[in-house]
Amino acid sequence: MNRTLKILPEGRVLKAPFGRGLSDVLEEAGISLSLYCGGRGLCGKCFVEIVRGDLPEPNEDERALRARRNLPPNHRLACRCRVEGDLVVRVPAGSRLPKMPVLSRGAGRTVSLDPAVRKLRLTRPVPDPASPRAFLDSIAGLFSGSRLPASVKTLKDLTRTASVAAEGSEVTAVLYQDRDWIALEPADTTDRNFGIAVDLGTTTVVVELIDLNAGTIVDSAAGLNPQVKFGADVVSRITAAFADPAKLEDLRAAVVGGLNDLIGGLLEANQVAPENVYEAVVAGNTAMGHLFLGLPVATLAVSPYAALFSVLPALPADETGLAIHPGGRVYLAPNIRSFVGGDIAAGLAAIDLEHQDGNFLFIDLGTNGELVVKKGRRFTTTSTAAGPAFEGMTISCGMLALPGAVYKARYRKDGLSLETVAGQPAKGVCGTGLIDIIAGALDGGLLSPQGHILSPSKTIALTNGLALSQKDVREVQLAAAAVKTGIRMLLDENSMTTADLDGIYVAGAFGNYLNVPNSVKLGLLPRFDRRRIRFVGNSSLAGARALLLSLPERPRCEKLAGKVRHVSLAKDADFQELFIKALEFKIWK
Amino acid sequence: MNRTLKILPEGRVLKAPFGRGLSDVLEEAGISLSLYCGGRGLCGKCFVEIVRGDLPEPNEDERALRARRNLPPNHRLACRCRVEGDLVVRVPAGSRLPKMPVLSRGAGRTVSLDPAVRKLRLTRPVPDPASPRAFLDSIAGLFSGSRLPASVKTLKDLTRTASVAAEGSEVTAVLYQDRDWIALEPADTTDRNFGIAVDLGTTTVVVELIDLNAGTIVDSAAGLNPQVKFGADVVSRITAAFADPAKLEDLRAAVVGGLNDLIGGLLEANQVAPENVYEAVVAGNTAMGHLFLGLPVATLAVSPYAALFSVLPALPADETGLAIHPGGRVYLAPNIRSFVGGDIAAGLAAIDLEHQDGNFLFIDLGTNGELVVKKGRRFTTTSTAAGPAFEGMTISCGMLALPGAVYKARYRKDGLSLETVAGQPAKGVCGTGLIDIIAGALDGGLLSPQGHILSPSKTIALTNGLALSQKDVREVQLAAAAVKTGIRMLLDENSMTTADLDGIYVAGAFGNYLNVPNSVKLGLLPRFDRRRIRFVGNSSLAGARALLLSLPERPRCEKLAGKVRHVSLAKDADFQELFIKALEFKIWK
Repeated sequence: MNRTLKILPEGRVLKAPFGRGLSDVLEEAGISLSLYCGGRGLCGKCFVEIVRGDLPEPNEDERALRARRNLPPNHRLACRCRVEGDLVVRVPAGSRLPKMPVLSRGAGRTVSLDPAVRKLRLTRPVPDPASPRAFLDSIAGLFSGSRLPASVKTLKDLTRTASVAAEGSEVTAVLYQDRDWIALEPADTTDRNFGIAVDLGTTTVVVELIDLNAGTIVDSAAGLNPQVKFGADVVSRITAAFADPAKLEDLRAAVVGGLNDLIGGLLEANQVAPENVYEAVVAGNTAMGHLFLGLPVATLAVSPYAALFSVLPALPADETGLAIHPGGRVYLAPNIRSFVGGDIAAGLAAIDLEHQDGNFLFIDLGTNGELVVKKGRRFTTTSTAAGPAFEGMTISCGMLALPGAVYKARYRKDGLSLETVAGQPAKGVCGTGLIDIIAGALDGGLLSPQGHILSPSKTIALTNGLALSQKDVREVQLAAAAVKTGIRMLLDENSMTTADLDGIYVAGAFGNYLNVPNSVKLGLLPRFDRRRIRFVGNSSLAGARALLLSLPERPRCEKLAGKVRHVSLAKDADFQELFIKALEFKIWK
Repeated sequence: MNRTLKILPEGRVLKAPFGRGLSDVLEEAGISLSLYCGGRGLCGKCFVEIVRGDLPEPNEDERALRARRNLPPNHRLACRCRVEGDLVVRVPAGSRLPKMPVLSRGAGRTVSLDPAVRKLRLTRPVPDPASPRAFLDSIAGLFSGSRLPASVKTLKDLTRTASVAAEGSEVTAVLYQDRDWIALEPADTTDRNFGIAVDLGTTTVVVELIDLNAGTIVDSAAGLNPQVKFGADVVSRITAAFADPAKLEDLRAAVVGGLNDLIGGLLEANQVAPENVYEAVVAGNTAMGHLFLGLPVATLAVSPYAALFSVLPALPADETGLAIHPGGRVYLAPNIRSFVGGDIAAGLAAIDLEHQDGNFLFIDLGTNGELVVKKGRRFTTTSTAAGPAFEGMTISCGMLALPGAVYKARYRKDGLSLETVAGQPAKGVCGTGLIDIIAGALDGGLLSPQGHILSPSKTIALTNGLALSQKDVREVQLAAAAVKTGIRMLLDENSMTTADLDGIYVAGAFGNYLNVPNSVKLGLLPRFDRRRIRFVGNSSLAGARALLLSLPERPRCEKLAGKVRHVSLAKDADFQELFIKALEFKIWK
């Protein structure tokens, strides 16, 4: 017998069979929750209020999470509850998967406007009545070297124009690389030529709508990667897909659906038809690229963690599921090796590191920390398992840099001074705030360099009931140590110290808000001339945009990706020892 | 309320709503009938016996057809009956769509064995534990110049091998044109490499299973084109698809389903897995090619009858619906122009007409008559609307050259001497028999040269109750006149007479059974030295086989198809006059 659930504040009524998980029921009804821990009852981000109805008693872990959040007993973790009777459930906004209003454009360099997609206005030929040429021949004959698509679907699409465009009328050819037919449109549509740049992050995805005629950003949108409900970090998602191949398709569908939501919103807001978007360039880390295409991740799940692909040809859009012109293309920025993926290759393209003289360190602090050292003309890279702590995941009061997030903090004599995004009341702490708070706590003697909270409460109280727990501090310690160890080993590998560096690029969601002295205090960044540290923001997105706007950037990027040397930290005998040493919060020697 | 139908001899019980057409009910139950006229009650080929139950009275036309076939009143045309009550219906074998056991291999010439698909045995590389290359890179690195597929599906298929083939084990690469990846198979499968050659005729389809390693024909099968139920001739199918776009998909699905039935049977009988068939080459007339791909036929439905395509790239097999390896290819022999299609281009390739010195006439007598004149190095072609009379369609007692078909006839003093296929009791008359019978009737004074049956019964009686009606004779007259007019005009167009010809090639289902003197008597063929007439049988199939076995034949064939000059008979002012004159049965002047 089905149970009846009323969901507030919507007032929607759902039916659910006895014993079904509450978060599953909500998910199926399109009410997505923040299941950062993959529904394992660990992150405490999916609390809902049981307004009416009974549920079995919570276990000890759930009670502890509830106590930490100061929630009354009728608040329950949706991921841990099974529906046994009729319920009235209020799902607070904070437990729902947010749509992010915050945009991150990244530091883009200027590239020549030379997109892969071009439109040409033609006149549909009038056939010779005595012996008419085949329609496609007559069209293709208008410019040389063109190549018909090896796709029945696209052929159908092209030939449909033969029925709707009168002979002698204007038609518009849409060509890929001046050679391959994407579409043939009735009338002159040359002024409608758009593309999509995608930064496909483990935690967040950012999408830009680009005008390929003008080379301008029309609009952009960002959101959480809906895969977070399968697990906050890359490893948990790979593990899920590896253990259950059906999950692979779930993961693929989740991220493609999320991207389509963002793209659909952008197109609607800007009155652009999906049929006028002919290419998307996607920059994501290796695992995200595999999952986006639904490729098996078995090789990424076990040592030596080989990717399946590095460079791929541009793929047919309809096969990827992206809701743009079905005959369009989707190009993935090339993976470098193992877990160092297309986001880093795109990032290097965005800042054109290859053509800068000198030695540089490139740090991308996303859900993982990826590092690149350029020494002269030689590139070396590695990835660290930093985890998503700096994106607010795995932190009890953590959140993305959304309105209400504490992004800056300073300890003064009279107490803690906090700044929140958009000046709203503090709802949580984002990555930059976390660093400031811990640095302040170290300064103020609330925290030992070993990461022990010294106050009797064993919490670092903030405001509005927000506090960092001992576990939260440990998460930051682990993340910072992973990055620090990575940087040290990569420099060692190149027989360099920070003194040999001409500059440091810091990419990632931190943007310009990262407090350098505080980061140095934690040991996250080495001590370095502040003027020679450049924050480049979302360089993955900027790279995707460059690859979309300028076709010649792609072979350059692919070539660079192929020549970057990759080292695996875990294989190194020194790793464990350096890592343990790095756990201490202190300035680098 | 549903009615109950019991079908004999199967004994199957079907349900049908009141008023539903009987032939539709049978079709949906997988019992396909011979609806050559498209279910219009004209061909009289779908008579079924109503063993029990009532039906409304037949109309006059149906009664006339029944009388001509000497059938008792409980025999009804399934295409004209609506189900109004419970019925027991016997469906005789003769009214069912036959599976043809007769094979037609065509006159194949020797081509170099150089197929587009090649298999290579490789060893799966063992990844470098410190920094493993991407799986596809490591495989592709084993031979240069290979190109990853721009298809997510094929990429998935390739990478699946990474999960099932151990490192260091043997794998087999399947490459298209030594460059494009089709598949990567675990273990050594190099001995399993097959292709399919298809003659896609308007009335019949023939399929050959080819061993691409050995260059041999493994087996073949033939059947009626299931599209005949939508209409016997090309024009009626184009009209159907043009009038109702949903019909286009029905037509496509019908022929692809029919081909898959034949292919499936061949593969099963020869224990070949569909996954080991990597390419199909399809030779069909222009309309059949369009319908096979589901391309709109609007341009073929109205003057000037332009095709949509001539040369197409090899298409992904899965997109065509052919049940071979989904990552395989389907290549269509190039269309020449308008209604002169890939079957003729393939036929020319099969006999290598281009490289023969002299002047030749090529006649393909299929459902339409297509004609090619080669004068020196110049090719001219046209098509005639001969219709399917010579394939037994539109003839009351007509049938394909199946067992029981009268294929030879001679009038002696003591009466008519008939020979049937496989020596079985006469069931009907096929094309060659038709020509013999009419020639004999002309000789015996039963028929005037104008085509009037002179006997009081107005029929030409044969045997077993079989007879040709006045209408049947008219069908032959029209078909022969169309071919004859075409030949004359094509020779005129080239300022030639038959005296200028060094030889005549006759292709089509007639094979070697066509009686030349009788054909000359009817005016179907010009008077010509018998030794210089060559019957080449199913040259379309032979051409498809040549194009499958030898990749270099394709650009040659495409080039030739592009240079053949096409003339449209209907545009010629002399056509009507010549056609009317040609209606008389007489030897050419």
